[in-house]
Amino acid sequence: MAYLRNAWYLAAWSSEVRAAELFQRRLLDEPLVLYRLSDGTPVALQDRCPHRFAPLHMGKIVDDGVQCPYHGLQFSESGTCVANPHGPVPGAARVRSYPVAERYSAIWAWMGDPAQATPDSITPFEFLSPEHWCVGTGYLRINAHYELETDNILDLSHIEFLHPLFASEAVRAAKVQSLHEGDTVWSKRFITRDTPPDFIYTGFNIPRGELVDRWLDVRWNAPANMVLNVGGVISGQPREKGVQLQQAHVFTPESATTTHYFYAVSFPRAMGPHAEQLARQSVETLRGPFESEDKPIVEAIARNMGTQSFWDLKPLLLSIDGASVLARRILAKKIDAEQSDQPPA
Amino acid sequence: MAYLRNAWYLAAWSSEVRAAELFQRRLLDEPLVLYRLSDGTPVALQDRCPHRFAPLHMGKIVDDGVQCPYHGLQFSESGTCVANPHGPVPGAARVRSYPVAERYSAIWAWMGDPAQATPDSITPFEFLSPEHWCVGTGYLRINAHYELETDNILDLSHIEFLHPLFASEAVRAAKVQSLHEGDTVWSKRFITRDTPPDFIYTGFNIPRGELVDRWLDVRWNAPANMVLNVGGVISGQPREKGVQLQQAHVFTPESATTTHYFYAVSFPRAMGPHAEQLARQSVETLRGPFESEDKPIVEAIARNMGTQSFWDLKPLLLSIDGASVLARRILAKKIDAEQSDQPPA
Amino acid sequence: MAYLRNAWYLAAWSSEVRAAELFQRRLLDEPLVLYRLSDGTPVALQDRCPHRFAPLHMGKIVDDGVQCPYHGLQFSESGTCVANPHGPVPGAARVRSYPVAERYSAIWAWMGDPAQATPDSITPFEFLSPEHWCVGTGYLRINAHYELETDNILDLSHIEFLHPLFASEAVRAAKVQSLHEGDTVWSKRFITRDTPPDFIYTGFNIPRGELVDRWLDVRWNAPANMVLNVGGVISGQPREKGVQLQQAHVFTPESATTTHYFYAVSFPRAMGPHAEQLARQSVETLRGPFESEDKPIVEAIARNMGTQSFWDLKPLLLSIDGASVLARRILAKKIDAEQSDQPPA
Repeated sequence: MAYLRNAWYLAAWSSEVRAAELFQRRLLDEPLVLYRLSDGTPVALQDRCPHRFAPLHMGKIVDDGVQCPYHGLQFSESGTCVANPHGPVPGAARVRSYPVAERYSAIWAWMGDPAQATPDSITPFEFLSPEHWCVGTGYLRINAHYELETDNILDLSHIEFLHPLFASEAVRAAKVQSLHEGDTVWSKRFITRDTPPDFIYTGFNIPRGELVDRWLDVRWNAPANMVLNVGGVISGQPREKGVQLQQAHVFTPESATTTHYFYAVSFPRAMGPHAEQLARQSVETLRGPFESEDKPIVEAIARNMGTQSFWDLKPLLLSIDGASVLARRILAKKIDAEQSDQPPA
Repeated sequence: MAYLRNAWYLAAWSSEVRAAELFQRRLLDEPLVLYRLSDGTPVALQDRCPHRFAPLHMGKIVDDGVQCPYHGLQFSESGTCVANPHGPVPGAARVRSYPVAERYSAIWAWMGDPAQATPDSITPFEFLSPEHWCVGTGYLRINAHYELETDNILDLSHIEFLHPLFASEAVRAAKVQSLHEGDTVWSKRFITRDTPPDFIYTGFNIPRGELVDRWLDVRWNAPANMVLNVGGVISGQPREKGVQLQQAHVFTPESATTTHYFYAVSFPRAMGPHAEQLARQSVETLRGPFESEDKPIVEAIARNMGTQSFWDLKPLLLSIDGASVLARRILAKKIDAEQSDQPPA
Repeated sequence: MAYLRNAWYLAAWSSEVRAAELFQRRLLDEPLVLYRLSDGTPVALQDRCPHRFAPLHMGKIVDDGVQCPYHGLQFSESGTCVANPHGPVPGAARVRSYPVAERYSAIWAWMGDPAQATPDSITPFEFLSPEHWCVGTGYLRINAHYELETDNILDLSHIEFLHPLFASEAVRAAKVQSLHEGDTVWSKRFITRDTPPDFIYTGFNIPRGELVDRWLDVRWNAPANMVLNVGGVISGQPREKGVQLQQAHVFTPESATTTHYFYAVSFPRAMGPHAEQLARQSVETLRGPFESEDKPIVEAIARNMGTQSFWDLKPLLLSIDGASVLARRILAKKIDAEQSDQPPA
């Protein structure tokens, strides 16, 4: 299966990779071991010793490098073999080292040509920067192709059916706009003159009884990095007067049939000590529908598709599919361009 | 794998598909959702929305049609899209609808060309008609190709070895006759001058001490629909003086390696209130050997065959295989004829 | 996958195949049923009736032959059909019979051309002969190709990393010699002037405080039959003054991805009644690291290799790989020679 290789992929939340611990994760069918140097800098190496193919994550961290669990070969943070307990250090021995960068509470790995890896091209998620935000993060493993998850977030018209708690007449009557600015896709939903459930009034700090204008704007960047802006304001007032919360929904392919689902919310540190608790509670609350409503349907779809591709199955396209089809086409174009540049890795 | 498509397959017992509930079952590698109209009429649709391929059985019944769980598209009982909450109803949108008929306590689905579906061609099982019979039904899922189950029922010489409770000298010395009338195959076993175990005397209402003549006649029709007539009479008397019980053994392929096993027994309503209890008890009793004696051997055979076909493995054919080989040939001929008529669906 | 076929494979420990019981085991992707004649002689037949492919191990032993569980065909110890309850005995009917020999507390099966099977070519394991030795045997099933296990035993430089309990400065500084005598490969490790842990002093019956010279010599014969000689002597003295224990490590492929691991130790009967207990305890103690240290790494390597072959992955070869590469080459040459002699079975 063709993946976009020259791209930053969210490999792990920062909190998943702890000091002095080796952390394994498979990305794009490749086994990675992630860890931190003694100064905290994250490192990603191929999780396979070139000698006998043992997974390095079963070994240990030695001198900011990794020691193989099987025969003790040692590799530096750059993947070079620096010690062989059984003889001279083999000059050519190395494991692949993946460029990594830590930003927005996450460790991002570059899975393609290292020469093209510039952290500037990481999809921006400013609201996950721990300097100014209390960030709540979550993770689910999904048995489905990652683009099925892109579809799910880019078309929130499913809320009414999959998440009945959030449904209402106004949600049903929402207006949707799909557009792209270069390779960034937007799916924007406008819900007007809504009388939402109580917890939404509370979230947006709007007095009960008022009609509410709401918006659910999703920004997509390749490969599957999305921001969901959830906002509300007293009906008729400008957005600036309202409240907007932001969620991250980032999907990294583990394989053609399995996906790492990273989601997060945040509250400004400026709110005070309350922000941290809010972030933790919110992300825990979100897990409910993500796990018990979205995950089952997306995985059932994957089972129903079997080994056939999305386009081979000739999907019926509706107006609500505008944004997800835009995203699928942009991603396919990027992968095609990469494939014609160079043979697949 | 080639299936016979222009055929009625037992899809579910009537009792499995309850009012106001969606019921899923995979037949011939295709996902089906079964349900009942408000007047009770059964319906079978493809269990895959043409929009995003969600399984419709996860949705709900609305206006005698099905609403997709994901984005709320609605399909009528004939599979036509009748509602799109997000815009105009897409004219071309439909899910495949399978002709169904309810007969003999079961719902039968036609998996081929709808134009050729006439309920008259359903294999007759009069003794399962609920009007005159109390029917006890059972279901097992078998990890084996369905023709291995056909073989099992069409050759009951295995009784002596697999079901020792039913074995005797006379069973061993049984005479067997294999014949076909058109595309119907019969395997007939005659057991004469038997002294069977007590429960058989009781079942046939014959005084202990008498010698018994017994018969085990199996009727097969494609694809794998069998009646087993189990009878007994005082030795030397004509069959009409004896008692005959009837069992149904129907096998519907789920996939090339898994099979739905539907079995049933019945007692005439004319017997009075006792009949219902007898039917329930008998089918429960039968489950024992079916599950703990037949199922393990058939599944072990399937494992032993791996991915090789029955004929490729060059089976040693014995006289006892007459009926099952007849059935295999008739089914193969029907499938071949169908395949040369039209490309496989 | 190509196996060496003209070879004796350890099929089961003698104790695994009990009188009057059928024992199943799959070797080289073929199902075998093992049992004993009334005089104790072991027999190995193909575990698949030629009639309907039922596994014979589900049947029973009758007259020193096997009766099929399904329709009662009976096969003699040589695989010839000798009884058919349903008609004349089919002359051509037989199951494959594998030459077997019982030696060294094990039953060995010949998986190739029977004409070439001479028990003389069984790899010698004299220290497992029950006449003179109390033998402790163990078994593990490994999810990995059997040559990965050969690699593991032929290169004990992993001890320091995988089995820290046995590590020491002297172990680290061990000298290694890899050589072959014809098709027999030796990997010899010399550990000199060691101060080992207490249990090693006890095992070698050397007073604590003495420096110890130790050796770990592995002898390999195709396909994957190894002896490990573990010895120790007061430093500077000749080996003959010391103590040597012997272990067997024999790997029989079940399939391309799964392996039967047979291991054993023994103590001379001449030691008296204590020997039996020692054998039992030692083999139980060994199971610990084999199961919790070697097995996980070997299986993790197999997962990391996926469907790629060892050589395709271009392993980095080190000095420590001398013996295992010798063994891999000898085995490959034998398989190649066999394949060019005759088409694979």
